[in-house]
Amino acid sequence: MVFICSVATAQLPINWIDPLNEGVLQGRLADNDITGYNRLPDSVKSVVREPVWALGTNNAGVYVNFKTNAKEIQVRYTVSGALDMPHMPKTGVSGLDLYASNNNGEWYWTPGDYRFKDTITYSFGPVKENSHRIYRLYLPLYNTVTWMEIGVSSDATIEFQKEEESPIIIYGTSIAQGGCASRPGLAWSNLLGRALNTPVINLGFSGNGRLEKPIIDLIANTPSRVIILDCLPNLTGVTPENTERIDSLIQAAVYQLRASQPNTPIVLTDHSSGFNKNILDETDNTLYEQTTQAGLASFEKLKQAGVKNLYHLRNADIALDINSTVDYAHPNDFGMVKISDAYQRLIEQFLR
Amino acid sequence: MVFICSVATAQLPINWIDPLNEGVLQGRLADNDITGYNRLPDSVKSVVREPVWALGTNNAGVYVNFKTNAKEIQVRYTVSGALDMPHMPKTGVSGLDLYASNNNGEWYWTPGDYRFKDTITYSFGPVKENSHRIYRLYLPLYNTVTWMEIGVSSDATIEFQKEEESPIIIYGTSIAQGGCASRPGLAWSNLLGRALNTPVINLGFSGNGRLEKPIIDLIANTPSRVIILDCLPNLTGVTPENTERIDSLIQAAVYQLRASQPNTPIVLTDHSSGFNKNILDETDNTLYEQTTQAGLASFEKLKQAGVKNLYHLRNADIALDINSTVDYAHPNDFGMVKISDAYQRLIEQFLR
Repeated sequence: MVFICSVATAQLPINWIDPLNEGVLQGRLADNDITGYNRLPDSVKSVVREPVWALGTNNAGVYVNFKTNAKEIQVRYTVSGALDMPHMPKTGVSGLDLYASNNNGEWYWTPGDYRFKDTITYSFGPVKENSHRIYRLYLPLYNTVTWMEIGVSSDATIEFQKEEESPIIIYGTSIAQGGCASRPGLAWSNLLGRALNTPVINLGFSGNGRLEKPIIDLIANTPSRVIILDCLPNLTGVTPENTERIDSLIQAAVYQLRASQPNTPIVLTDHSSGFNKNILDETDNTLYEQTTQAGLASFEKLKQAGVKNLYHLRNADIALDINSTVDYAHPNDFGMVKISDAYQRLIEQFLR
Repeated sequence: MVFICSVATAQLPINWIDPLNEGVLQGRLADNDITGYNRLPDSVKSVVREPVWALGTNNAGVYVNFKTNAKEIQVRYTVSGALDMPHMPKTGVSGLDLYASNNNGEWYWTPGDYRFKDTITYSFGPVKENSHRIYRLYLPLYNTVTWMEIGVSSDATIEFQKEEESPIIIYGTSIAQGGCASRPGLAWSNLLGRALNTPVINLGFSGNGRLEKPIIDLIANTPSRVIILDCLPNLTGVTPENTERIDSLIQAAVYQLRASQPNTPIVLTDHSSGFNKNILDETDNTLYEQTTQAGLASFEKLKQAGVKNLYHLRNADIALDINSTVDYAHPNDFGMVKISDAYQRLIEQFLR
């Protein structure tokens, strides 16, 4: 009896696979001209500011889709940055997240056991086998994976999958990058990708989402289903000069994108915070609200100039409340769901 | 002009107040026979298990109410434990949170600037003065404050307030203690206290909420509006022996509480996780679901025995989804809101 038990529980060797060798990373602009798990192509390194490049090595929104009949899925990896932030835990900054969809678009989630050591490990399962299930492994939101392997039992099969559909591209700030979700799948960009069952590319750069030309150039050259410009939280200011700066950046970005992608819907988004009389913070309220007003004026100008397929996501549609952020600027998971829901409602109006 | 500016921005000295000297701590069973910011009275130290005592020094659910006309509120404090956990950030484990209510029961939130150093500091405001506003400062969920001072400008007044109403008492696990909220005000016990405008006492003990006699004794001796027993996540098991253990603990707890407080509503709560076919985790699903079934059988037995004012919060009423927890067991802020909402809906049915 003891012998039988020990045979039954003996584990087969693990077959470790480096997804970089498979060329199957999703959630980024292109597969060529790109190093490791970076989000930005090498070609822009010389034209973007240094912090934009550094944040582009973070893996926000990057994911891998695969099918496997394995009961357990293991991942081991190393990262180069700090593991957490005061307002965002290791699981969000440096962790992984494993969701799955079936063949009718329904989504599932697989909790993982994690160890944050020099080599970080996640173990997912045991799960019941289902041949229709496509797993989606999200990479860290605020850290840079330097090496990663996905492991399944050597008697299991694993088949990577790649979506070829045009993506929604999000250009944004720390909020779009995923601060401060408790795990990667809860960044609003990743929530939205699942809600719409559409590939999403996350170009959120913490503190550095400033509607800059090199990033607009990249977006312009990537055929997209929707382009979201959600940069106002990194363009805050109350001076007339700042209002002019915002207008100038928005006009330049929208006209350039419209020229290269005449029919792609473009969404301009208010600052998600501000306009809440139940939040007691005079300084930030003024800052956020005046910034949103400046963005709105620029949006109205574009509409009056006849720019088509231009949409506006209002602060009031997002409707963050007194429990939705960790520090007023950055949504917690509750706020992330609100932001994703608001985008979904808007986008479903024009995306069929 | 330079001279005028420097006078205008010169700050008055800060008046620092130690709330312990004011005897104004809320969210705990009693003010006497208690050390520092502890939740448990000294008298139980010799009768509870060591981890229960240690967790009782954590300040989950402890808060201070005050009025002030200060534009800015500062707090400085020290803690004795680790500042964070892999799945819960410093702001939740060791941070503060400042809400406020006005005289018609509406709630407000004041974001804080924090520094997590040897002495942790929070700075709140600037806010507009409002003489009807009562602030509520929540203490850390998973750390032990060893020293704390609240500071306002020396020309401001500050007046501490104490609610005398009977509390809702929650006996629970890590989830009730607040794991894994991003900040203290988002622990479901604190959300619920605001939603119902009722004092709440948090007896959540991470990994150690096991319906034990010394804690039931404490609750029995504290006149309460509602008693919530939410301990199943620390009583998980799939054996018949575990089902018997759960039944025995629930029967003993409910009959003792009913004997000492004949009319106080008692709520028995399912495990908040489990029963979700979209969560792929066979082991935990089985564990959580069988534990909830055991608790439910015990509840039905009590109902059939004619125990009055006994209520049941169902897993399906909480309705956590694939985005509601950080690790399946512990709700994130999105899950915390769901749990508080479910309790609120239930309690408002019988609490007028």
